[in-house]
Amino acid sequence: MPRLIALYNVPADADAFDAHYRDVHAGIVARYPNVRDVRLTKPAGVAGRPAPFHLMAEMAFDTAADLDAALMSEAGAESARDLRNFAGAGVTLFVAPDEADA
Amino acid sequence: MPRLIALYNVPADADAFDAHYRDVHAGIVARYPNVRDVRLTKPAGVAGRPAPFHLMAEMAFDTAADLDAALMSEAGAESARDLRNFAGAGVTLFVAPDEADA
Repeated sequence: MPRLIALYNVPADADAFDAHYRDVHAGIVARYPNVRDVRLTKPAGVAGRPAPFHLMAEMAFDTAADLDAALMSEAGAESARDLRNFAGAGVTLFVAPDEADA
Repeated sequence: MPRLIALYNVPADADAFDAHYRDVHAGIVARYPNVRDVRLTKPAGVAGRPAPFHLMAEMAFDTAADLDAALMSEAGAESARDLRNFAGAGVTLFVAPDEADA
């Protein structure tokens, strides 16, 4: 399943970030049309290094067309606008298509 | 399942990167003890932006202890050494534990 992935940089106030994500942003993401699964994980560092990101959100869709439609939807626009309310430390967004024959 | 995730920055020579990953690095990763699944995807950008990474490798294990043991194994050390042969553009490594209740 193609995934939209958001990697959130480590915020100055992790508790405030987590509260906003849980109470506001998660509800917006849940309204993405045809989103099949949302997986949230808290990255950990490797070999004693600090975690490079605070939160990884993976949003899975049945098809690439569904993913594109979600980005263009009202919920997609609302999600983008909401980033300024909690993701000031920065976020990296990308699409992970189905597995490559790399 | 906990995952070890490697995000490779966009290389100067994508063809050389892909050839080295396929012909050398993938074989090292396949020797990680108890690795259950390796998923390779080629990220795409969102909203017309270029992809922030060239390749995402997700290596899944049954347990966090298995993942840690793989990092400490001979194959883990060989994998780290091999990065200098193809990942000069940079790579971000992190662990994604099982899903958080974020």
